[in-house]
Amino acid sequence: MKKLINAPEKVLDESLDGFAAAHANLITLGAEHKFVRRKTLKPGKVALVSGGGAGHEPLHAGFVGAGMLDAACPGQIFTSPTPDQIAGAIKEVDSGAGSLVIVKNYEGDVMNFEMAAELADGHVMTVVVDDDVAVEKSTYSTGRRGVAGTLVVEKIVGAAAEEGRTLEALHALAQTVNSRTRSMGVALSSCTVPAAGTPTFKLADDEMEMGVGIHGEPGRRRVKLQSADAIAAELVESIIEDLKPGRGSDCLLFVNGFGGTPLIELYLMVNSAKRILSSHGISVTRFLTGNYVTSLEMAGCSITVTELDNELMKLWDAPVRTAALNWG
Amino acid sequence: MKKLINAPEKVLDESLDGFAAAHANLITLGAEHKFVRRKTLKPGKVALVSGGGAGHEPLHAGFVGAGMLDAACPGQIFTSPTPDQIAGAIKEVDSGAGSLVIVKNYEGDVMNFEMAAELADGHVMTVVVDDDVAVEKSTYSTGRRGVAGTLVVEKIVGAAAEEGRTLEALHALAQTVNSRTRSMGVALSSCTVPAAGTPTFKLADDEMEMGVGIHGEPGRRRVKLQSADAIAAELVESIIEDLKPGRGSDCLLFVNGFGGTPLIELYLMVNSAKRILSSHGISVTRFLTGNYVTSLEMAGCSITVTELDNELMKLWDAPVRTAALNWG
Repeated sequence: MKKLINAPEKVLDESLDGFAAAHANLITLGAEHKFVRRKTLKPGKVALVSGGGAGHEPLHAGFVGAGMLDAACPGQIFTSPTPDQIAGAIKEVDSGAGSLVIVKNYEGDVMNFEMAAELADGHVMTVVVDDDVAVEKSTYSTGRRGVAGTLVVEKIVGAAAEEGRTLEALHALAQTVNSRTRSMGVALSSCTVPAAGTPTFKLADDEMEMGVGIHGEPGRRRVKLQSADAIAAELVESIIEDLKPGRGSDCLLFVNGFGGTPLIELYLMVNSAKRILSSHGISVTRFLTGNYVTSLEMAGCSITVTELDNELMKLWDAPVRTAALNWG
Repeated sequence: MKKLINAPEKVLDESLDGFAAAHANLITLGAEHKFVRRKTLKPGKVALVSGGGAGHEPLHAGFVGAGMLDAACPGQIFTSPTPDQIAGAIKEVDSGAGSLVIVKNYEGDVMNFEMAAELADGHVMTVVVDDDVAVEKSTYSTGRRGVAGTLVVEKIVGAAAEEGRTLEALHALAQTVNSRTRSMGVALSSCTVPAAGTPTFKLADDEMEMGVGIHGEPGRRRVKLQSADAIAAELVESIIEDLKPGRGSDCLLFVNGFGGTPLIELYLMVNSAKRILSSHGISVTRFLTGNYVTSLEMAGCSITVTELDNELMKLWDAPVRTAALNWG
């Protein structure tokens, strides 16, 4: 295992300390590294809380700040945060208007976030994101997995929360965004969890895992490496088949790297995916490209498509000030 | 070779097409993909032009936009752009106030950019960035290499150009920033140039290349993998020894990933490097962390330190609107 670390059990804490130092203008760390929260809360605003295992950086801590999350709870790498940890974060950032908890659909996360919502003993609603069309159920999930589309939910609902909408309205919006968002990924290499020390899975030199999950869990099938165009076609066609966007739809195209694939390849995938969407009469009117929902150093990418209407586009464009997304 | 590509000879063009589509609000592509330029030029402003071989994305095209570069010329992967290509870009963005050309100190780049400056037949000045303390001369450079510190020069001088400073003043500022900036990197893995198809160099499972260049060229020595703290100590101490910042200095700490190292490790390096700088009485008052000056999918990172004064800090903080840096 070749990593820039000191000891596997210290990776998360030391990384969070670096993150907190680097972004002290935006965020602060909770006691014992239990959560990352906005430095300045906005009174009267519904709080948005997310989290999950580490190893997917910048998700979620990188999305804490104005226009997006109020708090994020990191678990150890690929391990759910604990219920008391999450409940602590919810209590910390609830300014009286209630909290919306955004959870990726993985069994451990769903269980712990739901338990936390009860523990927090406030006005808490939960939305479970399940955007991954690769498989109907997986190693760690009942039903579809929640993957990179989680970023889209967090951004759009974050903007709406900033406008002062109610918890119920934000919960409904989150469901809408989730229902209009689909993703699918491919891995060209595995990743290595520091505590394990060896790769999570093995791929031959000419193989890829089509439909991989964000912890390297199996997707649809293991196949020979294909061209970028062929890979983009399978990912985009799978998404379209499921999302069924109308011809003439506008969409957000989010090409997400898993951590080990360089930007030059991700933009090449943008070019392929956009062309394929166009051939279906779908216009890409918003783009996001980069390593945002990663699997440590895994090579590969996922494609996420969100069907946009004017409201969602406006909320996507709204100002955001976080470590990883900053615009408007 | 496992990459998301269609054919090695098409990687750059297809990637630039994706980049141009994704950032059409900021930039446009020159004919035949010869350069990336700001969509809207600012009349009367000195033009800032940079470039170099592709494979270091988001450098340089990702830094084109308000507050930073006016144009960037990408060569093929790890290959300098041609003089006529660069001259074309200079002519395209020169609005009458002259052009400052920012070049990383690599022989091919320096030769081609200097030839381009003559060909462009305007008021052109050149600054050569040589921030890498690892080696006094290298495979491809006479004198020190220009590496991640180039971003710092482009950002700070870009902000000053936006204020309407003269070409001569900007040239002097660029020299100042270069003289206050030092970098050094380490590689944990090689990278593979698509046209070559095999890794540029080989490292054993327990080895790293200390002082690596951004094309994978040799550094100081090949040694056994060490802890993050030990690596950070060698990088930071080498920088301090050369830069000789005074105790009580303020600095920018830029921890740059080479493309294959996840953000969780980069922030861990931030934590280490900051502590080491503090132990020398140097305060880190500005941070930048991420994969910005990459070597395709190489694992590893570089550390860059710029000694700041109030003016440089103000220019660093000034608004920037590019694909890869966006704040203020």
